[in-house]
Amino acid sequence: MDGSFFQVKVLNTEFRRRGKEMVDYVADYLENIEKRLVYPDVEPGYLRSLIPTEAPLEPESYEDVIKDVERVIMPGITHWHSPYFFAYFSAASSYPAMLADMLCGALGCIGFSWAASPACTELETVMLDWLGKMLQLPECFIAGTHGSGGGVIQGTASEATLMSLLAARCKAIRRVQATNSNYSESDVLGKLVAYTSEQAHSSVERAALIGGVMMKQVPADNSYAVRVDMLKKMMEEDKAAGLIPFYFCATLGTTPSCAFDRIVELGPLCNEENIWMHIDAAYAGSAFICPEFRPLLNGVEFADSFNFNPHKWLLVNFDCSAMWVKKRTDIIGAFKMEPLYLKHENQESGRSITFTHTHWQIPLGRRFRSLKLWFVFRLYGLQGLQAHIRKQVALAKVFESLVRADKRFEICAEVIMGLVCFRLKGSNELNQNLLKRITDSREIHLVPCQLSGRFVLRFAICARTTESSHIQQAWRHITQLTFELLQEPSH
Amino acid sequence: MDGSFFQVKVLNTEFRRRGKEMVDYVADYLENIEKRLVYPDVEPGYLRSLIPTEAPLEPESYEDVIKDVERVIMPGITHWHSPYFFAYFSAASSYPAMLADMLCGALGCIGFSWAASPACTELETVMLDWLGKMLQLPECFIAGTHGSGGGVIQGTASEATLMSLLAARCKAIRRVQATNSNYSESDVLGKLVAYTSEQAHSSVERAALIGGVMMKQVPADNSYAVRVDMLKKMMEEDKAAGLIPFYFCATLGTTPSCAFDRIVELGPLCNEENIWMHIDAAYAGSAFICPEFRPLLNGVEFADSFNFNPHKWLLVNFDCSAMWVKKRTDIIGAFKMEPLYLKHENQESGRSITFTHTHWQIPLGRRFRSLKLWFVFRLYGLQGLQAHIRKQVALAKVFESLVRADKRFEICAEVIMGLVCFRLKGSNELNQNLLKRITDSREIHLVPCQLSGRFVLRFAICARTTESSHIQQAWRHITQLTFELLQEPSH
Repeated sequence: MDGSFFQVKVLNTEFRRRGKEMVDYVADYLENIEKRLVYPDVEPGYLRSLIPTEAPLEPESYEDVIKDVERVIMPGITHWHSPYFFAYFSAASSYPAMLADMLCGALGCIGFSWAASPACTELETVMLDWLGKMLQLPECFIAGTHGSGGGVIQGTASEATLMSLLAARCKAIRRVQATNSNYSESDVLGKLVAYTSEQAHSSVERAALIGGVMMKQVPADNSYAVRVDMLKKMMEEDKAAGLIPFYFCATLGTTPSCAFDRIVELGPLCNEENIWMHIDAAYAGSAFICPEFRPLLNGVEFADSFNFNPHKWLLVNFDCSAMWVKKRTDIIGAFKMEPLYLKHENQESGRSITFTHTHWQIPLGRRFRSLKLWFVFRLYGLQGLQAHIRKQVALAKVFESLVRADKRFEICAEVIMGLVCFRLKGSNELNQNLLKRITDSREIHLVPCQLSGRFVLRFAICARTTESSHIQQAWRHITQLTFELLQEPSH
Repeated sequence: MDGSFFQVKVLNTEFRRRGKEMVDYVADYLENIEKRLVYPDVEPGYLRSLIPTEAPLEPESYEDVIKDVERVIMPGITHWHSPYFFAYFSAASSYPAMLADMLCGALGCIGFSWAASPACTELETVMLDWLGKMLQLPECFIAGTHGSGGGVIQGTASEATLMSLLAARCKAIRRVQATNSNYSESDVLGKLVAYTSEQAHSSVERAALIGGVMMKQVPADNSYAVRVDMLKKMMEEDKAAGLIPFYFCATLGTTPSCAFDRIVELGPLCNEENIWMHIDAAYAGSAFICPEFRPLLNGVEFADSFNFNPHKWLLVNFDCSAMWVKKRTDIIGAFKMEPLYLKHENQESGRSITFTHTHWQIPLGRRFRSLKLWFVFRLYGLQGLQAHIRKQVALAKVFESLVRADKRFEICAEVIMGLVCFRLKGSNELNQNLLKRITDSREIHLVPCQLSGRFVLRFAICARTTESSHIQQAWRHITQLTFELLQEPSH
């Protein structure tokens, strides 16, 4: 067997064998995942000592490599798809998406232009239309309606936020220079100001840092949402001080507590003031395919761009972040570059200009990620996807009830989707100690957040395979650790 | 079978079956790829009419989905892994990388911090050390030597360039403000000037556009390389005009002609002038694992950051772009953000700070991409990888000889690696017509470039499976089309 991967003639046969073994390994792993401790018991630097310091000169056997998966890798894995994983937000995973990814790897086309693989660019446009229709997005965001907008797959919500901020920056600079021709670009840059919620994801602030513009955090209300009066007040003060407000990033489903900024009131203000409104619904966006959650997206018609991550909650493996813009020209205009080796004869036709997604993103290369959407949409159907969302929201409600029934605990934010923020009534230190016990036990995994200065535990329904029994078990575990903690003399 | 993906109990069994079928489909596709026309015969918009306008309400059968791969997708695929694909640069593909990607999909961990999956972050650091050693990078770039540098996997070279430019921008702003405390950030931004070759990839100019800084193109010499005198002259003029040079992006292996900027002379100048030198060796970098090509990397010791794409030429499927920095603090300092939900108890230890790759890149989420490197390095071994590089360079030499033997043609740039730039002696129009015939025939696929105002055909050795017989066949095809073209009355 040694070195067979290097002998071209046996490559295909060997792949058929090893590929099928890998399919079984993957199925075994996922079937038995709850038997593994969800959080790994290793110290930083554990891995380096387990493997050689250099690559081998000659090929090793496949058996040796695959043996090392259990020896070297698995001890250091946080098992995101264990039904006992309740940290961060869910990372989507499904068999249809994995099958599509296998096909994507084999095709191995880099879709940086229409000609580089027409199917790659075209399926993406149509899948984003399918998805936009599932969300009942206004027609202006749907490419197939011959409107001015359309969708694109980004790697992450961070990239979508950055692209929207850069497009807004470009538009603002052009607008300001059109009326103040003596302003240089850096003069304008120094006056631009962007806004987002104090509850927004760190990547929003980071986008402003990258774009070289000032960003201000808008205070949220008691439910951790931004209201129009708060934004309006800040903007007016800034304008009076000679600054130029140009961008607002609203969040639907914040990371700490899954709060929803009031875009119905914020949108009209942004439109009146010529401010680009981007909506980041990274986690919660998937839920808008259910009619009962769709009202939370009302106001999207005022947005210039909208983004959410099917790779979080819509059963499409990472990475796949869906972004729509109202006017393609806004985002393309900011970045279009066309060296000769990327030109092709079809690009001057009106239709294919739509399709050059490379102008819509930071990287030039792109995988055939829409295959995952196509497989998942067809093999689950809209109803199957809705059932997945509803099941996870219902499980969050189960956990909320358990917490509410225990007077030692409190719920810290309204439970709207699959996230429950809770804490022990008492000091931050007490709650930090509880979390430390949970983390150290490695049986379930949570991360904290801070809400109104309080240290809060986030319990997010994550894995596709999490059932009510896992929630019950997790709660028994938490209350047992709480019991032990409160027994200690210091409390 | 209908809807079985939605019935949880049969999911695993169904995946074992469909996964193995997909392995066979993939193996069949790659085994028979040369029977397909390499370039697709479709018009822009072809796909939309082949599928419904909306996602199905109920699950479809797997058979229907997989049937549509041949009906809908394959007609629109440019077959990058066909031995008759000679366009752009190679996109790497190998069975070991595909197997690792299957495992990566199943683990589905999002490695945005050490705690989010320790193995993901740690294997990446060690694999970048392995790779750095294969390239004989100076020790300061190797994390395991306890130096100040280290490596990170980016999605694409575009992102690596952008990260290096942003880190350089941050460093320059701090330096300038330290001595001119009355300068605002935007004052400095307006004076900063970056440089790159006129032959550099469009993503370099785009990085400057994103970063909001001026970028100037340095004229290349007759071999399409930048020399130190050209850069020095421009910088001195700019400094005299009150600008602040801060960044130079050198290219090793330019996209048009695979030219090499003279970093041995450029590096010392950049170091003296406090200019961040980034080296973009996206394509050619893989070849530096061969001692005979390593001299082209001499001068890397002067660089602040260095990047190349194993996903181009090192048999690691897209995406996997390897980047090293000399000082981790330069790149981390520019972007570090730490909300509570990303903190974990190990992060304050000196060792684990090394491991937070999220501060080194644009996206927050990251797949477990180092698994691909690990599988490929071990299953090919360094010698296997070197053999792959040498074989492709030798094939380029075969093609070069064929061109040189035909007096109607000329070679347009020195053939150093796997790229041959050639053209018919005659007008640009003549060469455009030849390329159009080649493209329309769909039997082989090339793209053009422009060199010194001339329209040039690029013949890049791309697929892992390309053999000398394919090169001979491609040349017969080109000369046949040339014969037909020159027969036409207009010539």
